[in-house]
Amino acid sequence: MCIKRETLQHNIRRTKLLESLSSKKNGEKPTGRRIYRKITILLFRPENIFYLTNFWGEGIAILSEGGSPIKLVVPKLEYTRAISTSRECDVISSERGTTLINTTISMIKDKEFVFSDSNDFDAINKIQSKTGNENMVIDSNLLYGLREIKDTKEIENISNASKIIDKLFETATREIKENTPEEQIQAILVYEAMKLGARFPPYQYTTNPLIIASGPNGSFPHSETSNKKIRSGELIVIDLTLSFNHYVSDATRTFGIGKITGEMKKVYETVKESQEKGIEHINNTSNFGDIDACCRNAITEANLGDYFTHSTGHGIGLEVHEPPWIKPYSKSKIRENMAITIEPGIYIENKLGVRIEDSLLITKKKGKANDSNDGYSFANFHHFSKDLIIL
Amino acid sequence: MCIKRETLQHNIRRTKLLESLSSKKNGEKPTGRRIYRKITILLFRPENIFYLTNFWGEGIAILSEGGSPIKLVVPKLEYTRAISTSRECDVISSERGTTLINTTISMIKDKEFVFSDSNDFDAINKIQSKTGNENMVIDSNLLYGLREIKDTKEIENISNASKIIDKLFETATREIKENTPEEQIQAILVYEAMKLGARFPPYQYTTNPLIIASGPNGSFPHSETSNKKIRSGELIVIDLTLSFNHYVSDATRTFGIGKITGEMKKVYETVKESQEKGIEHINNTSNFGDIDACCRNAITEANLGDYFTHSTGHGIGLEVHEPPWIKPYSKSKIRENMAITIEPGIYIENKLGVRIEDSLLITKKKGKANDSNDGYSFANFHHFSKDLIIL
Repeated sequence: MCIKRETLQHNIRRTKLLESLSSKKNGEKPTGRRIYRKITILLFRPENIFYLTNFWGEGIAILSEGGSPIKLVVPKLEYTRAISTSRECDVISSERGTTLINTTISMIKDKEFVFSDSNDFDAINKIQSKTGNENMVIDSNLLYGLREIKDTKEIENISNASKIIDKLFETATREIKENTPEEQIQAILVYEAMKLGARFPPYQYTTNPLIIASGPNGSFPHSETSNKKIRSGELIVIDLTLSFNHYVSDATRTFGIGKITGEMKKVYETVKESQEKGIEHINNTSNFGDIDACCRNAITEANLGDYFTHSTGHGIGLEVHEPPWIKPYSKSKIRENMAITIEPGIYIENKLGVRIEDSLLITKKKGKANDSNDGYSFANFHHFSKDLIIL
Repeated sequence: MCIKRETLQHNIRRTKLLESLSSKKNGEKPTGRRIYRKITILLFRPENIFYLTNFWGEGIAILSEGGSPIKLVVPKLEYTRAISTSRECDVISSERGTTLINTTISMIKDKEFVFSDSNDFDAINKIQSKTGNENMVIDSNLLYGLREIKDTKEIENISNASKIIDKLFETATREIKENTPEEQIQAILVYEAMKLGARFPPYQYTTNPLIIASGPNGSFPHSETSNKKIRSGELIVIDLTLSFNHYVSDATRTFGIGKITGEMKKVYETVKESQEKGIEHINNTSNFGDIDACCRNAITEANLGDYFTHSTGHGIGLEVHEPPWIKPYSKSKIRENMAITIEPGIYIENKLGVRIEDSLLITKKKGKANDSNDGYSFANFHHFSKDLIIL
């Protein structure tokens, strides 16, 4: 029963994707039979392959117009696992590397129009030499139009990931003590998360799964969790990113330990106000640039604008960072069932950092849409307090 | 003192890299002053940037001939961390994404000859539009010639990572029990590893840091650690990959639990013999293809050749998988201070898997080189038993 529902869901996604791309072919119309060429979609990125096949691993997925199942070309060592986890796919075994790409290319029919999510220079050159430049669209955003809008099952997974994060914040309040190394807190939180079924999505720019950044380390937005010991009188940024059934949640709280200065409290309250205003502003606007501006203004008004050195947020889903982007001047429209973060921060070099972040779901507004809002509101995936907790 | 030594090490690497590329410029000779154009190297991959700058994070490194320090272009949010961790770099702050690449391009001087490790289609197209195709070499293997040969400090890091793995195998023998879910073993091992300072390098094709594959799951070489409970009478593949100070070690042992069949024992002994013969063969050959053949022959002789579905091994270092590749027909030369894995396996669908893997260092032979060997031997980073342990 469960498998059937999942298969249906994957088939709907495949159909939607093909439909959405049909209109994008250099002005060709799906109606004029004579000029109409079929579409082939080549997917290289594991998140996209998983989204359409349920297989997460190394391989290339080939989706063609005409109703035949997806072809999934995988390295020999992944063949049986791909058969066992994929849904309605023809799984084809190949050698790794260049051979995998060549096997795929040999399966593209002449005169077909090819879309690909690859940004791999060598692979694209090889494919273009078969299809010709003019018959190929390279677009790493190919699936985001679909993936941005989460279905019930996806929301449930993000919600479960979020509940684990909230539990970890509770644990952190018990484990943060003077002289405890940051990496010890990390080890405890990772252990607890894994026991609850969480996993840690790969992010190539860090080797630490979590950010535990105390005192001056907090001034690095992407601090590397270290063996530095937590000291009394410090703020500690705890940024937790984890996944449940492949779906990511991302949230941050900043705690204090011992005697916290007036400046620290002021910075904390500024970030908190900025974050809360930004979230509430979902009720009053129709695009993400406005949310960014709202968070940024609150910090600028406190004369701390220069210390907010990154975007306000990002989409979450099969990746930690995916569209929509909540950044300055973005005109991206807010839409129902998007899952996003809102995470302003203030970073003062050699001194401290404060960040507060929630993962949120965009919902339909219960009341009426107003002039500047298309009728959307939000639900917060997290329930852990945002008041400054001093340990 | 420590910082000085590290700086020296980074400078030596930079000089070696520039020298190695000078000769690769479309036949230009560094001597003929008139036609000689300076070289610029653009590095995008975090491992390569770390190797030359000590900064691990998002950014682009620009190394030019002429003795000026590396320019490190990083997103604004990474600026202070890059300054604090990089060695002898001019750190430049930029916005993320396209702007980061544009900032970099604006710093390439006219008529310079550009090498890049990027395989990013969009980035390469942008750079080529500034430099022209003919003045650019795209080569994702750019640094491997240097990185393949490990120095004392790198070997020490791999050795420390290996010691942690050996400890985890001990832990596994205590924790593997009937009815224990695979993911519970994983959580315990990850916790112990992190307490010892280990980290888990990202690998985009899986969301699990370790492979704990029991019974039929063992037949997937890249099995996803699951909530499946371990049963009596099963073999359990424990494949541990972790890093210490960014350097990776990788080793696998297969354990039994309860009553193990004669077939299981035969498969185990075949893999063990294959792996041990392959390692010993380092003393008798000068290329990696021969090592692969040696491991493969031992399995084929037992009429199980079809069940060994992957390569024999790979290099380890800042990445889990990097050159040299120990695969069929490889002519890659064995050289001193390479760090590699040797990991044959047998996988029987719906039934079982056995893999035995060590990380090894290529050393200089104490005795004399013989006809088919260039004078190299090996040291095993691991000391955990390879006999079949039945729990």
